[in-house]
Amino acid sequence: MNKKKIINDPVYGFINVPTELLFDLIEHPFFQRLHRIRQLGLTYYVYPGAIHTRFHHAIGAMHLMQEALESLKSKGYNISDEECEAAMIAILLHDVGHGPFSHALEHSIVKGLNHEEVSLLFMQKLNGEFNGKLQMAIDIFSDKYSKKFLHQLVSSQLDIDRLDYLNRDSFFTGVVEGMVSSERIIKMLEIENDNLVVHEKGIYSIEKFIIARRLMYWQVYLHKTVLSAEKMLENVLKRAKELANKGNDLFCTPALHHFLYNTIAFKDFLNDDNNLNTYAALDDYDVFTSIKVWQNHPDTVLSELCKALTHRELFKVRIQNDPFNPEQINAFKNEVKNLYGLNDDDANYFVLHDELENSAYNSDDEKIHILYKNGRLLDIATASDQLNIATLAKPVKKYFLCVVKSAIGKVKQYN
Amino acid sequence: MNKKKIINDPVYGFINVPTELLFDLIEHPFFQRLHRIRQLGLTYYVYPGAIHTRFHHAIGAMHLMQEALESLKSKGYNISDEECEAAMIAILLHDVGHGPFSHALEHSIVKGLNHEEVSLLFMQKLNGEFNGKLQMAIDIFSDKYSKKFLHQLVSSQLDIDRLDYLNRDSFFTGVVEGMVSSERIIKMLEIENDNLVVHEKGIYSIEKFIIARRLMYWQVYLHKTVLSAEKMLENVLKRAKELANKGNDLFCTPALHHFLYNTIAFKDFLNDDNNLNTYAALDDYDVFTSIKVWQNHPDTVLSELCKALTHRELFKVRIQNDPFNPEQINAFKNEVKNLYGLNDDDANYFVLHDELENSAYNSDDEKIHILYKNGRLLDIATASDQLNIATLAKPVKKYFLCVVKSAIGKVKQYN
Amino acid sequence: MNKKKIINDPVYGFINVPTELLFDLIEHPFFQRLHRIRQLGLTYYVYPGAIHTRFHHAIGAMHLMQEALESLKSKGYNISDEECEAAMIAILLHDVGHGPFSHALEHSIVKGLNHEEVSLLFMQKLNGEFNGKLQMAIDIFSDKYSKKFLHQLVSSQLDIDRLDYLNRDSFFTGVVEGMVSSERIIKMLEIENDNLVVHEKGIYSIEKFIIARRLMYWQVYLHKTVLSAEKMLENVLKRAKELANKGNDLFCTPALHHFLYNTIAFKDFLNDDNNLNTYAALDDYDVFTSIKVWQNHPDTVLSELCKALTHRELFKVRIQNDPFNPEQINAFKNEVKNLYGLNDDDANYFVLHDELENSAYNSDDEKIHILYKNGRLLDIATASDQLNIATLAKPVKKYFLCVVKSAIGKVKQYN
Amino acid sequence: MNKKKIINDPVYGFINVPTELLFDLIEHPFFQRLHRIRQLGLTYYVYPGAIHTRFHHAIGAMHLMQEALESLKSKGYNISDEECEAAMIAILLHDVGHGPFSHALEHSIVKGLNHEEVSLLFMQKLNGEFNGKLQMAIDIFSDKYSKKFLHQLVSSQLDIDRLDYLNRDSFFTGVVEGMVSSERIIKMLEIENDNLVVHEKGIYSIEKFIIARRLMYWQVYLHKTVLSAEKMLENVLKRAKELANKGNDLFCTPALHHFLYNTIAFKDFLNDDNNLNTYAALDDYDVFTSIKVWQNHPDTVLSELCKALTHRELFKVRIQNDPFNPEQINAFKNEVKNLYGLNDDDANYFVLHDELENSAYNSDDEKIHILYKNGRLLDIATASDQLNIATLAKPVKKYFLCVVKSAIGKVKQYN
Repeated sequence: MNKKKIINDPVYGFINVPTELLFDLIEHPFFQRLHRIRQLGLTYYVYPGAIHTRFHHAIGAMHLMQEALESLKSKGYNISDEECEAAMIAILLHDVGHGPFSHALEHSIVKGLNHEEVSLLFMQKLNGEFNGKLQMAIDIFSDKYSKKFLHQLVSSQLDIDRLDYLNRDSFFTGVVEGMVSSERIIKMLEIENDNLVVHEKGIYSIEKFIIARRLMYWQVYLHKTVLSAEKMLENVLKRAKELANKGNDLFCTPALHHFLYNTIAFKDFLNDDNNLNTYAALDDYDVFTSIKVWQNHPDTVLSELCKALTHRELFKVRIQNDPFNPEQINAFKNEVKNLYGLNDDDANYFVLHDELENSAYNSDDEKIHILYKNGRLLDIATASDQLNIATLAKPVKKYFLCVVKSAIGKVKQYN
Repeated sequence: MNKKKIINDPVYGFINVPTELLFDLIEHPFFQRLHRIRQLGLTYYVYPGAIHTRFHHAIGAMHLMQEALESLKSKGYNISDEECEAAMIAILLHDVGHGPFSHALEHSIVKGLNHEEVSLLFMQKLNGEFNGKLQMAIDIFSDKYSKKFLHQLVSSQLDIDRLDYLNRDSFFTGVVEGMVSSERIIKMLEIENDNLVVHEKGIYSIEKFIIARRLMYWQVYLHKTVLSAEKMLENVLKRAKELANKGNDLFCTPALHHFLYNTIAFKDFLNDDNNLNTYAALDDYDVFTSIKVWQNHPDTVLSELCKALTHRELFKVRIQNDPFNPEQINAFKNEVKNLYGLNDDDANYFVLHDELENSAYNSDDEKIHILYKNGRLLDIATASDQLNIATLAKPVKKYFLCVVKSAIGKVKQYN
Repeated sequence: MNKKKIINDPVYGFINVPTELLFDLIEHPFFQRLHRIRQLGLTYYVYPGAIHTRFHHAIGAMHLMQEALESLKSKGYNISDEECEAAMIAILLHDVGHGPFSHALEHSIVKGLNHEEVSLLFMQKLNGEFNGKLQMAIDIFSDKYSKKFLHQLVSSQLDIDRLDYLNRDSFFTGVVEGMVSSERIIKMLEIENDNLVVHEKGIYSIEKFIIARRLMYWQVYLHKTVLSAEKMLENVLKRAKELANKGNDLFCTPALHHFLYNTIAFKDFLNDDNNLNTYAALDDYDVFTSIKVWQNHPDTVLSELCKALTHRELFKVRIQNDPFNPEQINAFKNEVKNLYGLNDDDANYFVLHDELENSAYNSDDEKIHILYKNGRLLDIATASDQLNIATLAKPVKKYFLCVVKSAIGKVKQYN
Repeated sequence: MNKKKIINDPVYGFINVPTELLFDLIEHPFFQRLHRIRQLGLTYYVYPGAIHTRFHHAIGAMHLMQEALESLKSKGYNISDEECEAAMIAILLHDVGHGPFSHALEHSIVKGLNHEEVSLLFMQKLNGEFNGKLQMAIDIFSDKYSKKFLHQLVSSQLDIDRLDYLNRDSFFTGVVEGMVSSERIIKMLEIENDNLVVHEKGIYSIEKFIIARRLMYWQVYLHKTVLSAEKMLENVLKRAKELANKGNDLFCTPALHHFLYNTIAFKDFLNDDNNLNTYAALDDYDVFTSIKVWQNHPDTVLSELCKALTHRELFKVRIQNDPFNPEQINAFKNEVKNLYGLNDDDANYFVLHDELENSAYNSDDEKIHILYKNGRLLDIATASDQLNIATLAKPVKKYFLCVVKSAIGKVKQYN
């Protein structure tokens, strides 16, 4: 009888883990911690189903990578077993460097940390533990491997990463319109001059993929209530860091304490192994547990933010195409200052405003190319005969204003 | 215990038939015949799953209509039980006038017949049988009823008809990208000044709906091989009619015989009941059975076309953005003339060319309006901030050329 | 670019046709005719979604066979590429011998014909056309091939045939409870002493499979209204044959005429090629078209049966555990004789009674064996610790009585 | 525009929250905490998808309750709007008393606490906050309301609770065989003499429901690896409590500290409001965060258990039909004592053995009754003609032995 590992996945059914090395990497504590890091942070406050973790996304992406490689091989493209395993490792670990609520975290406690760089650190560490067996995967991940298309499968505008996360996020949020036909797109992939391209038959699927991605951005990832929850979390962590810097005492897990009470930059990860190991101990649970306790902290800003976040009394958000009127913003701030007896700086924790920018397709980036029967290659933005992908490639900029609920209503013309 | 009828549907699960009148209409032979008329004609030659019938679409549309009416009522819009039943009858019967392979049929045997007009005739006949109980449904269907939005639910650019058929055709073809979130769109419907409009929250879903419709057109409804099969069928029927007109003997069911050997226009349906009753006896089975038998007819044109169609040896099709070169067309015709020993006119049965035109959204038609919180209404083509619906509203014109396989290869530069 | 054929399937998504020979067999007219033979005959009168054809089932079974073979190979069992293709051909063609409404047909027009034997004839004919390339498939199908487990995959109590049809029939009828986890069962298959067995981890899935099969029998295949429609059809064909034998004139397609006006037994298929070729021209369309025309035949029995069947005015059925009272049956017959002015024999066409028998699992047949870690093999009937499979193995016998609606009500105590 | 709340759910699509009171209850912190309590505890260690929370199950059950009530009302049974809302509240809150990992918790830190009693306490507290509006829901939940069938919908052998959790757990684990047709079962419900019964048409669905439940028990809820993880967690909490009782210092959130360092029984919840409020602050995050920190605690038993649990190095489990040999158990204990230098009592933390008992259907409990057309009622165990439900009603008893991995291998004959 065989010892192959099969993982049940609500999205794809059964997922095979085809090699022992992949299996051992999944079992490793660095990877197992992803069980405790939700893929979409606090999005479940809006879409309660969105509780899937980075573990699921990584496993799903590994599965799609295998399907893509098998499809390419069946078309006669030459990919060795070793390259297959390496590409699967690269995608399995591409997000292993994510911390809990990583966007909020990277804007507050560990400023300037980039999860891709940390993924690479984890891979290098694992490469040590596994006697160099991850070297090819690292080369693919870092785009240093000779076959460039393998890197493009891991990271490009039509990578396996996106194919999985669009479907998975769509599945768990219930926003079915974000679904893309990853199975069909994968079957349409070809390689031309060492570049990943799409057979012309797949052009409508690619259009649909770009539209679906755009829809998911505005309907889920940048949904105004999700934005509110994330900005509140970011402010909680900023405030906690501020208090820690001033020497205040804060309930913390040891791992969170380490990053809250020390100023640690990416270079410190390189110099001191302890930083990466402590980072590996940090997950959603550390952060949210602390927030729950901080509801009772004497600092008003911290406790009020934490209460609101825990009880889902989220800030009211408005998104518009033009910048907000500074007078209106000030009116809100004044209201907040009165309400909580705060100074100007602290009022900013309850009245936030900023820009959002997103483009469904980026023509400056590595393009998605369509391969025609006659051998011609065209950028999808040009190939699409009618759907204006070129328009979609222009970034959309919007402005948001986020205000604590209790300050609304006192100020006119918000709704 | 209750006598409510429940119908199992692969797409929506259980469908309730909420009133006795609806149940009796479904049981009526006029409606039961839809079991034998496939929704997508010969599309199953390309997508083998596409074998669902007009019966399924009608039942599914009735179901979505009920959901839409219930959603509107729950929002406080006033719709009486009688109006609900009438709207459900109108959508249930909106396609009851379809004949077998109706596009081919309407271009060959019963020229100029329009299935919507025939649907109305059937409804009027049923109204007689059911003592006037269908009058309100007929008024809604004919847009004579006071509440205009009920007609818009039955027929408009965002009607229940499209919501069902896009999903259903997508489901059965397996082209999952055509799926629209009918459930979500239905929940976003509002009524403003007696017009069906869409809440601004639904804007991305509407965009997606338009894109999905466009994709289904080019991927399924106008798929080049589907086109080929349908054009071949049209030619079969044209040839049969031509032979019948000349007094040739053709195997036929009595119902098909009636329409093949008589020239019957829409006005004849009004004058003589027998025409509608005979039409009601006609379905896919009559047509295809005859085609199978005609494989052995002495007329070469007819028998060759029928053999090719029955054995799925479909004409080769090419679609392009510009008209085809007349010289190339003539080269094919000459080849056909030689191959089968035909004259110029008859060669046309094996070499077809024409235009295709489609627009995903039609701004000249009744528009899809988005309702904003502040009460403003905007055409989706204007409301969509980035996706260029205005561009999609421009009709796309393409040209196709369809040639019997045996004539290809002899003529250069076709592929 | 590759020429591999992909088929969209509503049940499994994309299905690959991995070899050219398989592709050519699918394209062959013998196989293409399956597009016009519904898998479940008239079941759509009860479950309107049940309109899938034998084409779909054959393609789906081919797909599951490929999955099963790949899973076995990945566990180290030795199966050559040639054997894989042969097993896939065997399952693809296992039902190619089915005629339209085959149970009714085999009990009326072509008595004693067995569809498995006809499948074999078709295979042998194709083997000739394809220069002997189907020989191994024929050997597997006929259980003459050295590796017995390949035949068991094609035909046994846990064969690929059942795994596909249970799921597919469940999918299209909407009776979701009939779904089995074919993916899981396939992954649990092992080979022990050249026999297909199931890993002990799969025991609950096998139990569930047996229960699902039982449920589908009583809920779908032997559903009393389905039974009624099939028995009515059988009587239509019997009557038509009777009239034909007496020299009456009946509208017919040429293919149906051949079998209606000649008495053709299986041996005649062996002696005269024309019989098989004519059989290959016969499908649902021939039969149902004729039934529609026979509604106007002067013979009362035939015309009444055909009207009732076409308009779905099905006979009323009662199923019970004990035989029906002969007096009650006679009362119905007398009623029918009066109603239609028929003699005793002809009345039988409107009052039918017979037995039904089914067992969910058959312990006398080749058993389903469970393989334990320690190497022990146990019959599922013994292995199942609690669910009494042994009880399920006992055939259940029931009795049914089927009476034309107009005769009901006049006779007491039927409901 | 309306203010009705719609919740996206991966299992059922859109869920309506039909009344303001239901909406306010969902928004309440008591209910929102369920976002942080997974429905299946550590089951995700085996089925990674099983990360759905008690929030999802409660919302889903509320949805099915609404469907059941609407179906019953449409059949003419009299249920008022107030009763509908009350029944929906009762099912929404039926599990609100669950703590994190509740089985482990109830066997260690808060011994003897029963989550149903705590649910009732929460409901009573909410009843106070909402001015008595939950009284009818409380009566239904406690089976004190006049219409007994409403309580049976909330809690019985065929209650809405089971209909949701079987489907939901099946969906998220990916064990599709556990799916039940809740939609069909709900449509088959009738009321007879104030008792919930099932129409005879639903008998196969009920059989399938019982079989599915049995399958889910052995495949998921009592899966040996799930069992191992839960027993390990239970031991962690027992050890922590033991250390706390001895006055040892343990990292804790304040809420966990309260229950770890005080001995609190159910009566203390009645006497002191602080207990319930602190309990409401406790969730999975408190427990797992502490476990992660305890990996570095000086107590070997605690730290080893916590390391193993965090890194998913789970104890090896064996399940068998007979009790384990005491000699074998002792051999393992001795091995553990040597390995970790422990005394006899402490070794028990690494070598566990106990019984498991489960019956798919309980004939002693309130039975599931089938209602026949003639008005007869039969227990499903008797009604099922062939499937031996009576056998399934007998509880199955099994024995398990759970041993830390490092001790295996040293002792013979374990595998």
